[in-house]
Formats: sequence, C-alpha cells, structure tokens
Amino acid sequence: MLSALLADGRELGTVVLGQGQNRFTFSKEPTLEEVRRLQAEFTDERDWNQFHQPRNLLLALVGEVGEVSELFQWRGEVAEGLPGWTDSEREHLGQELSDVLIYLVELAEKCHVDLPQAVIRKMALNRLKYPASKVQGSSKKYTEYTD
Amino acid sequence: MLSALLADGRELGTVVLGQGQNRFTFSKEPTLEEVRRLQAEFTDERDWNQFHQPRNLLLALVGEVGEVSELFQWRGEVAEGLPGWTDSEREHLGQELSDVLIYLVELAEKCHVDLPQAVIRKMALNRLKYPASKVQGSSKKYTEYTD
Amino acid sequence: MLSALLADGRELGTVVLGQGQNRFTFSKEPTLEEVRRLQAEFTDERDWNQFHQPRNLLLALVGEVGEVSELFQWRGEVAEGLPGWTDSEREHLGQELSDVLIYLVELAEKCHVDLPQAVIRKMALNRLKYPASKVQGSSKKYTEYTD
Amino acid sequence: MLSALLADGRELGTVVLGQGQNRFTFSKEPTLEEVRRLQAEFTDERDWNQFHQPRNLLLALVGEVGEVSELFQWRGEVAEGLPGWTDSEREHLGQELSDVLIYLVELAEKCHVDLPQAVIRKMALNRLKYPASKVQGSSKKYTEYTD
Repeated sequence: MLSALLADGRELGTVVLGQGQNRFTFSKEPTLEEVRRLQAEFTDERDWNQFHQPRNLLLALVGEVGEVSELFQWRGEVAEGLPGWTDSEREHLGQELSDVLIYLVELAEKCHVDLPQAVIRKMALNRLKYPASKVQGSSKKYTEYTD
Repeated sequence: MLSALLADGRELGTVVLGQGQNRFTFSKEPTLEEVRRLQAEFTDERDWNQFHQPRNLLLALVGEVGEVSELFQWRGEVAEGLPGWTDSEREHLGQELSDVLIYLVELAEKCHVDLPQAVIRKMALNRLKYPASKVQGSSKKYTEYTD
Repeated sequence: MLSALLADGRELGTVVLGQGQNRFTFSKEPTLEEVRRLQAEFTDERDWNQFHQPRNLLLALVGEVGEVSELFQWRGEVAEGLPGWTDSEREHLGQELSDVLIYLVELAEKCHVDLPQAVIRKMALNRLKYPASKVQGSSKKYTEYTD
Repeated sequence: MLSALLADGRELGTVVLGQGQNRFTFSKEPTLEEVRRLQAEFTDERDWNQFHQPRNLLLALVGEVGEVSELFQWRGEVAEGLPGWTDSEREHLGQELSDVLIYLVELAEKCHVDLPQAVIRKMALNRLKYPASKVQGSSKKYTEYTD
C-alpha cells in the first residue's frame, strides 16, 4: 500500500497563485487517517503497542519537538522558505517535523481523539474567538487576542 | 467550504475490527492539505502572516505541547482510551492536540516542507531502520532500537 | 576556580532524616549565581554571546527538555529514586538535567531576571495561592488547585 | 527561614563591570539546595508528594517551558535585556522561569540527582568538548560544535 501510494502519481507540493502571492501547498496524500493507519501497522508489526501508552507517546512527542528546536536554536530569526538552508538541513527538518506528526497522530489515536474532526471544530472556534473584522489591522494588540 | 465539509456526512471516527482487536480510526477529512489551506485562509483574513515566521510558529507549537502536557501532568499512568476522563476533559484534550497540529502544519508550510510527503519518506526510513524481523519481541532492548 | 571548587571539600548530596522519611539533598555549591558566572565565563571565552540571544537560548532549553523526555519516554511510570536504572542512565540524566539548568540560568541572565530572587517571590505566591489548610488531603481536587 | 532570608538584606541583582561590558548578576541566595528544601517543605505541608513522581514532574516542567515560550512566541527576535517589555511582562517572565526552576529542582531531587554537582561535572565536560582555542572565532561553524 505504501509503494502503491508512492507510485500512483500523487500530486507533489506546488506553488500556486493565491491572493496576490505565491503560496506553498502540500500534497493531497497521505491523509491524517492514512498516516494513522500506516503507523498503526508499523507498531503492530513490531509488537510495540505495549510501549505506546498515551504518556509514553506524549514524552516522545516532546522529544521530537526538542529535535525540531535544535535545528532552529542558534540561527536568530529565520525567514519563510528557509533561505540559506542546505538541502541536507531541509531534509533533516522534514524528518523531525514528520516525527512530531507521527507521534501526535498516534497519541490522538490512543486517546480516542478523532484528530481531523477535532481540528475542524477548533478552527471553527478560533474563527469565533478572533473575528477578522475585530482583529484585522490590530497587529499591535495581537498578543491580547491570542494565548 | 467549512460548513460544506461539516454537512456532507463525513465518516466519523469509528471502531473497526482489525488484527483481532478493536481499533480507533480517524475521519477521512480534513486532510493535511485541507488543514493547511483553512489555516492559511484564517491567517490571511486577519493579516497575521507578519507574525507567523517559522520561529514564532515553533514557539507557539512548544506552548501548545505544554498545554497538552498540563492535561497529563498529575495523573500518573494513563491507559489507552483515557478511562475515567470526563467529556469535558476529552474535549479539552482534542482542542489542545488540534492546536499542536495547526501550528505544526503552518510551520511546515512556512518552511516549505511538504509535510505529507515528508512523513511518507520518514515512515519508509523507519521501516528500514527497525525491521520487524529484528526488533519484534525484543521489548527489553526497545530503547536501543529507538531514539 | 572550577578545580578550586571541586577540591575544597564541598558537601556531597546526602540523605538526612526529616519528617519520618529519608530525604535526598543537594550539595550546597555551586549556587545559582556561581552557575551563572561559570557559564558566562565559558560563553565569553568562546565569543559565543553573539549566539546567545534570549530566543536562541529558549530554543536550546526546549531542545534539552526534549532530551530529558527521551530518557523517560518508553518506561511507563518511574518511581522516586529511579529503581532499576543503570549508573550510566543516571549519569546521562544528570547531564541532561544540567543542560536544562545551564540554559535556564543563561536565559534568565540575558533577560535580566534575577532568578534566585524571582523564585523566592514565586514560592511565596504559591504559598498564598495554595494554603496548606485548604488543599491538604484534597488530593482528588488537586488539579483544580494547580495549573 | 523564608522571611529571615527576605529580611536580611540579601544582595540584589546588580550590574557589575567585567570584560569591558556591563553584566547582569544574580543574588547569592537562595542556593539550589535552599530552593530544593523550600519546595520540599511546600510539598510536604500539602501532602502532595503522592503526585510528585518523576514523570509527573517532568510533564509539569514541559508545561512551564511552554508558558515561557508563549511569552516569546509572537515577538520576532528579542534582544538582551528585553527592551520594550513592560514591568508586568518582565514580572510574568520571572514567574514562569521560576516555575521551570522549581520543577527542575524537584525532578532532580526525586530522581536522586545532585543537581549542583551534576552541573559542575557537565560544565567541565563542556570545556573539554569545546576548547576555546579551537572554537573561538569559528562562529560560522558553531552548529557543528554543538548539538
């Protein structure tokens, strides 16, 4: 299934025109559910579910966020698109971000949280909490609107 | 588009039979690309891209992982499915996990990392690194296989 | 100065009797100010202050917390005193906790926060916020008292 | 003892001249051992040791690091001394850094790690690992020397 996914001509990340600016987009696959299923198969095949209780996965997630942080820690400000980063550094970042996603997905699964549904609800709540008409152009008070 | 997504009878998280055990699954939508696009629209509408440089997003991600940790911090071990947690606690967890996902997705976008593609590559690397035939049943040495 | 500190017979960590139980204690030195000064000398000697802005140090701190987490991530519950941990694992933990302390101290210094004074104030606030007479024996509501 | 400490005219954080630059310093007290003892008394008085197992404390530490991150997350680069921060923001930062220190100290205690001794050893190891004669002025390769 993995190789089928890889072989079927899935759309790669592309830059599309939107709202007067180029915008980086993701591939359409794998979906969150596909990531969940592939990771579940990986865990099952190794008999590792015994280690993958929620708090273990949470600490693993913290560890991976730490590894992402290490890639950014001595650089000062970093601009969008990571100008000046080498291909190797970008590949490394992609791996660490992936590790964060993998443990986040498995943590949600083991907590029986339907992550795709939860994120739709949370984004709807955010739209209610920060109405564009109220916060737009109020950049100076941005910290007051968010937590 | 959001309401259309919510109204179209999307499959909810269900428990299916697989490999002799019940398994929690995710809804098929939204995909990672849909999460990215919805969050990009949210950020555009509020003129907040000026605040969403990579390191700002990374620190926001760390903050949200901290909030997830606070939900688990005084509980001792927590079993799969979160027995004994109230509906309110589960909803809160879903919100915090969603915040982690939202900032992870936006961080990847702003770094021009195609997160769905990167995770497929990382899971393929993990299969090479930890062959099931070698690590299965070697739970005692689990820490030696992973980092 | 470092070797002088090491050679001057500083009291090592000892177990003393208090309130009916053995209690692990710390050595009296180095103090937080001594840690700050030694790390400042280390940074000065290497001309590394240019890299040690507050947010760089914060991300380094996050990285080190991640490394501590990796030591605890697959173990399930861990009891006080770390029964069953090898000497090597304990030494490794001591190093990672030290890294967290070093970056925390340097972050406070670069933010001009007098960390020893701040912690005295915070502990005084905690005593006001959680009066022993109110919260003692209310373990069931512990999460309500803390955040 | 706490009030005695507070009343005895302890030296406050001061700026001293060193190596051609002003340098912020910490108060001499409390020491790490005093922080440990005061927090142990606080925990004992509330009968909270039952909640303060190592992994619970670690997750609490992660939560507090998250709160520090939230104070820095939307600011872009922040300079030494936090120019432009209000007194309230500085006080808030002091509190969150203190919370990190408190949980770090208690985590070390419950793991029977003599944190002051461990940090002296770690700083000695760092001096061996990064000799000033080798890394000084090699700022471009800084990331190669550290991890």
